[in-house]
Amino acid sequence: MDLSSLLPELRAFMAERDWGKFHTPENLSKSIAIEAGELLECFQWDSEAKPERVQDELADVLTYALLLSDRLGVDPLEIVSKKLQVTKEKYPVEKARGSSRKYDELQD
Amino acid sequence: MDLSSLLPELRAFMAERDWGKFHTPENLSKSIAIEAGELLECFQWDSEAKPERVQDELADVLTYALLLSDRLGVDPLEIVSKKLQVTKEKYPVEKARGSSRKYDELQD
Amino acid sequence: MDLSSLLPELRAFMAERDWGKFHTPENLSKSIAIEAGELLECFQWDSEAKPERVQDELADVLTYALLLSDRLGVDPLEIVSKKLQVTKEKYPVEKARGSSRKYDELQD
Amino acid sequence: MDLSSLLPELRAFMAERDWGKFHTPENLSKSIAIEAGELLECFQWDSEAKPERVQDELADVLTYALLLSDRLGVDPLEIVSKKLQVTKEKYPVEKARGSSRKYDELQD
Repeated sequence: MDLSSLLPELRAFMAERDWGKFHTPENLSKSIAIEAGELLECFQWDSEAKPERVQDELADVLTYALLLSDRLGVDPLEIVSKKLQVTKEKYPVEKARGSSRKYDELQD
Repeated sequence: MDLSSLLPELRAFMAERDWGKFHTPENLSKSIAIEAGELLECFQWDSEAKPERVQDELADVLTYALLLSDRLGVDPLEIVSKKLQVTKEKYPVEKARGSSRKYDELQD
Repeated sequence: MDLSSLLPELRAFMAERDWGKFHTPENLSKSIAIEAGELLECFQWDSEAKPERVQDELADVLTYALLLSDRLGVDPLEIVSKKLQVTKEKYPVEKARGSSRKYDELQD
Repeated sequence: MDLSSLLPELRAFMAERDWGKFHTPENLSKSIAIEAGELLECFQWDSEAKPERVQDELADVLTYALLLSDRLGVDPLEIVSKKLQVTKEKYPVEKARGSSRKYDELQD
């Protein structure tokens, strides 16, 4: 499965149902936050959760994230890769190793 | 850019910084919700937002979503495709067309 | 400090800045989700967090929640109390005791 | 209805069900984010929503926010009032009037 076969499938699904009109960047961003809440609910009272349930909620987050990238006209993997380059510079290996501190709190 | 080249890059980034230990499914799910909130902030008071800012926040959501799928050992595009099949059945074209109702409120 | 002295203070703060126009129920709900994400960020990689930081983020969630209740014309404490009555019936003591299950998964 | 009568009622509800053990600050913060997502869902595709539904979801956010303030040992109205003083200084009336800009983007 790659994006070049998944995206047309997602687009056709939406077009057939005439749902594009609901998919403004704002509504898709709300949808990502809503689905992220459902994903988090798997872990509400416990650090462990059923993998199938987590996978199911993660699929919903990813679906809206792919729809938003498509709406913005950007390649979802490209923007992750691009952001990774930025993060690499903010968190140099020698300073960030083994630490969960934010980049502006990293210590020498 | 495809997943087979992006994932090893993401994994190397994390391994070099010894961050894998922080990336439990629970922590990654919290991270997705946190980044989803930052994405939503682009639209806090307005339906319009600068595309570059939206793209930047979306990249963060996607990064954690890819890390979670990797942690769960599932293909992120595969689970989206699989979920799409389920959604297709819940929202038949003839009933769902042009409507934003939930599947259990669809009308004949 | 009680609501009858806090609410007029909140309202005056907003009125002086002419911010009421931004405070639609939708925008306030987005704001609650955004601030909830910032609160969650205190616990992103750790179950422990500095109490002052948590308190600070909780104050933001509460502020928007009070503004939304005011906008809806309801008493925030009243709706909590009313909801508590409903929850009491969904989670009878003898079944719910010591369990974090959802009401539809409670066992006899 | 005031806090001095609502809080004991909330505490008794939790104590009877032995739910205090689940109510760590982290779990309560996750719960607030989860309920904030459900509140946001009222506005997923539309700026308008049924007031009763919004009120119902807002009550859930408020319940967990009150439980967290109680757990932190702080007065929820007091921390809102305290934060309001800080915000007043960050957003002086003459600069902030009618604007939704962030304090660090306010113009003279």
